[in-house]
Amino acid sequence: MLEELKEKVFKANLLLVEYGLVVLTWGNVSGVDREKGLFVIKPSGVPYDSLTADDMVVMDLNGNKVEGKLNPSSDTPTHLELYRKFDDIGGIVHTHSSWACSWAQAGRDIPAYGTTHADFANGAVPCARGLTAEEVGGEYELNTGRVIVEEFEGRGISPSECPAVLIHRHGPFTWGKDPFKAVENALILEEVAKMASRTERVAAIDSHSNIGIEQYLLDKHYQRKHGKNAYYGQK
Amino acid sequence: MLEELKEKVFKANLLLVEYGLVVLTWGNVSGVDREKGLFVIKPSGVPYDSLTADDMVVMDLNGNKVEGKLNPSSDTPTHLELYRKFDDIGGIVHTHSSWACSWAQAGRDIPAYGTTHADFANGAVPCARGLTAEEVGGEYELNTGRVIVEEFEGRGISPSECPAVLIHRHGPFTWGKDPFKAVENALILEEVAKMASRTERVAAIDSHSNIGIEQYLLDKHYQRKHGKNAYYGQK
Amino acid sequence: MLEELKEKVFKANLLLVEYGLVVLTWGNVSGVDREKGLFVIKPSGVPYDSLTADDMVVMDLNGNKVEGKLNPSSDTPTHLELYRKFDDIGGIVHTHSSWACSWAQAGRDIPAYGTTHADFANGAVPCARGLTAEEVGGEYELNTGRVIVEEFEGRGISPSECPAVLIHRHGPFTWGKDPFKAVENALILEEVAKMASRTERVAAIDSHSNIGIEQYLLDKHYQRKHGKNAYYGQK
Amino acid sequence: MLEELKEKVFKANLLLVEYGLVVLTWGNVSGVDREKGLFVIKPSGVPYDSLTADDMVVMDLNGNKVEGKLNPSSDTPTHLELYRKFDDIGGIVHTHSSWACSWAQAGRDIPAYGTTHADFANGAVPCARGLTAEEVGGEYELNTGRVIVEEFEGRGISPSECPAVLIHRHGPFTWGKDPFKAVENALILEEVAKMASRTERVAAIDSHSNIGIEQYLLDKHYQRKHGKNAYYGQK
Repeated sequence: MLEELKEKVFKANLLLVEYGLVVLTWGNVSGVDREKGLFVIKPSGVPYDSLTADDMVVMDLNGNKVEGKLNPSSDTPTHLELYRKFDDIGGIVHTHSSWACSWAQAGRDIPAYGTTHADFANGAVPCARGLTAEEVGGEYELNTGRVIVEEFEGRGISPSECPAVLIHRHGPFTWGKDPFKAVENALILEEVAKMASRTERVAAIDSHSNIGIEQYLLDKHYQRKHGKNAYYGQK
Repeated sequence: MLEELKEKVFKANLLLVEYGLVVLTWGNVSGVDREKGLFVIKPSGVPYDSLTADDMVVMDLNGNKVEGKLNPSSDTPTHLELYRKFDDIGGIVHTHSSWACSWAQAGRDIPAYGTTHADFANGAVPCARGLTAEEVGGEYELNTGRVIVEEFEGRGISPSECPAVLIHRHGPFTWGKDPFKAVENALILEEVAKMASRTERVAAIDSHSNIGIEQYLLDKHYQRKHGKNAYYGQK
Repeated sequence: MLEELKEKVFKANLLLVEYGLVVLTWGNVSGVDREKGLFVIKPSGVPYDSLTADDMVVMDLNGNKVEGKLNPSSDTPTHLELYRKFDDIGGIVHTHSSWACSWAQAGRDIPAYGTTHADFANGAVPCARGLTAEEVGGEYELNTGRVIVEEFEGRGISPSECPAVLIHRHGPFTWGKDPFKAVENALILEEVAKMASRTERVAAIDSHSNIGIEQYLLDKHYQRKHGKNAYYGQK
Repeated sequence: MLEELKEKVFKANLLLVEYGLVVLTWGNVSGVDREKGLFVIKPSGVPYDSLTADDMVVMDLNGNKVEGKLNPSSDTPTHLELYRKFDDIGGIVHTHSSWACSWAQAGRDIPAYGTTHADFANGAVPCARGLTAEEVGGEYELNTGRVIVEEFEGRGISPSECPAVLIHRHGPFTWGKDPFKAVENALILEEVAKMASRTERVAAIDSHSNIGIEQYLLDKHYQRKHGKNAYYGQK
């Protein structure tokens, strides 16, 4: 069942290790089959070096396990909520990558400081508000997804314009048109988070430094890569 | 004698190198056999790439060498004291990993800033007080163990709730149910220590940042992984 | 056509990955054949691990594609402008390496703080002014090249004395007598940028620290490696 | 001639690459044969991956080349001066490793902040004064050696108690009983320099932090590893 998607999700999970975005059993990747209304996700707490494509768990969009011997990732309800509300995404990634988590733990949006960021997202990467005691005490992982959706709707950000979010005190979720693109976005987010903190450090020495990309330059880079007339890459 | 445990302790020592937690001959791992009242530890000052399982040294819980051609780690009395007082632990690790040592040298507890930390320990990782001149001049390594135990007892922390400690001006010790779990905890501690310092750096730029995880979120993450009704991982 | 140069440019592009200066499809290297008036550049947005020498694109110095199935790097007009105005350079590199980008995003020149820098460049590495909205809205990549040339001319810096520039809010370009030397300079720039930021951090703790290399020591190191009577290396 | 020493010096040079202490052609290792009054050193500016044991250059202690097709390292006169004045050392290393250079560029001694440092050196690692314009304009590399010796003599530090020095605005030299031990000390110095800066960063957040190892703890660690009654390691 969904053998091809399982293989993709499996390989995308291994890429997290190759890119240095996870240690031990941390992190998870999922991918959705919109036609069938099913998604495939990494099992919970299984070491990457013993993982197989067959270990992947198949879920429906009501949160029921459809196939799989193992428990799905404990973050499954967050993935579920994002698939339900963000129509255009095909893959989701969660990691505890160090720089992205550091911004999340500090509770700060990652500001757009340069073109590396602008090639990735059309504005700051939002840090969603923290969950209340009630939200944590209830359906915690589902509520995490709800808070992400609320944050994007409240700020008027489209998930296609910004493929990443930080959860306050927690860490990043990223997405993309498929599981590989979601992993790629997790890697870029970590680079952008690292560069933003280093930019602030370098700028702090010089009182004339004035950081933050100009809107016209942000637009230019975002559009040349993602816009209607994009000319980065091959057709 | 204890061939299986020696093999485990040997392999766990090599993991320290693989995880980038040690250079040269730094660091050591031990494992205990509670039934026999014996523990196995790395020999002192032997390079990891020439180490064999046979080089492991067998000690009893009175501190006598029972088997082995080589001298045990100079930190052996610290391990001994922890095995005597922390009944439930099966393996111990000492490293000089850079971020954990930096917190130890600064003499600060590592605060719980987020869920990565909460998945690991049920509160701050304590930095034990420095040893006095008398304690250093006497049975130094044994006294190091005593100060760790004193710190946990004095603060009312159970070693099962927090599998790590920092020794002031020195570095970390971690433990677990077996040598592999103790190494895993050494790796997590280093990640948590790095992330905590980066969080402080990111937060320092923004006067509205307010760092430190909420108690209810700490509890939730600690319990979903380690509590009675834990649902992270497989059964 | 230009098979040897294509092979060199291809290999130089792979060195960017080996040196850790790029992730994903970021970065590009080109090399010029001055006699034929042609240059060879990486195609846009192609992953390094599927890249072949045959994928390299041949351009003339008027900006016309002369050979190649793929689109050239979107930064091609910047390379073009540099080849036209900097007569002595044979290869050009653009990366988004983290430390160099952090200085670029902060809008600061990298000051000459020590001999590692002096072995590389005869003074600070300039951060060129940001492009205006008009320059970004027009021929953006070409204007990027023009701003670099303007910066070097305005400050009276010869491109042979300083093989690197930072573009405000963007990142570095480096060059050299051939594509390999340009990649080498991209690596050195990243080392120098990292060391400069760390130097500022170490110095910030001690109010007596007074950073910035003395002119006579800068001259000595630059000249012993690059001057008429250079005695570093082999003849 | 001196084939065994050449082989050792060659291998020790390659270790610099393996340990991540050098990039490109940076850095050099030498080793001395005290009986013959000769030392062997890396040639200048040769890439590590094409280096052979045969490329090593043999020098006498008057600074004359005795054997070798290539030019010796441009830093050879510094090595020479150290071999002449520091009687007990058998190998010398120079690198531009990032953290050690950052302290050198900031012009600061590396303070003894903990036991990692105390296991290595019996006090702060000194940063030697900068060379004057006259010293740089004259026999620059020889004068670098003289300034190191002056610094150790002026401060009453024995080279056996502290196997490392920083040169202001430049970088580190380390030494040891043979070339391998000198490389080991270059690696430890880099770890210690990194940890010291991170310690200052962690401590800076908490006004109660009071950094700097106690003298009795410094003595204990230095002596347990290097003293008459040392008990670290095997006999």
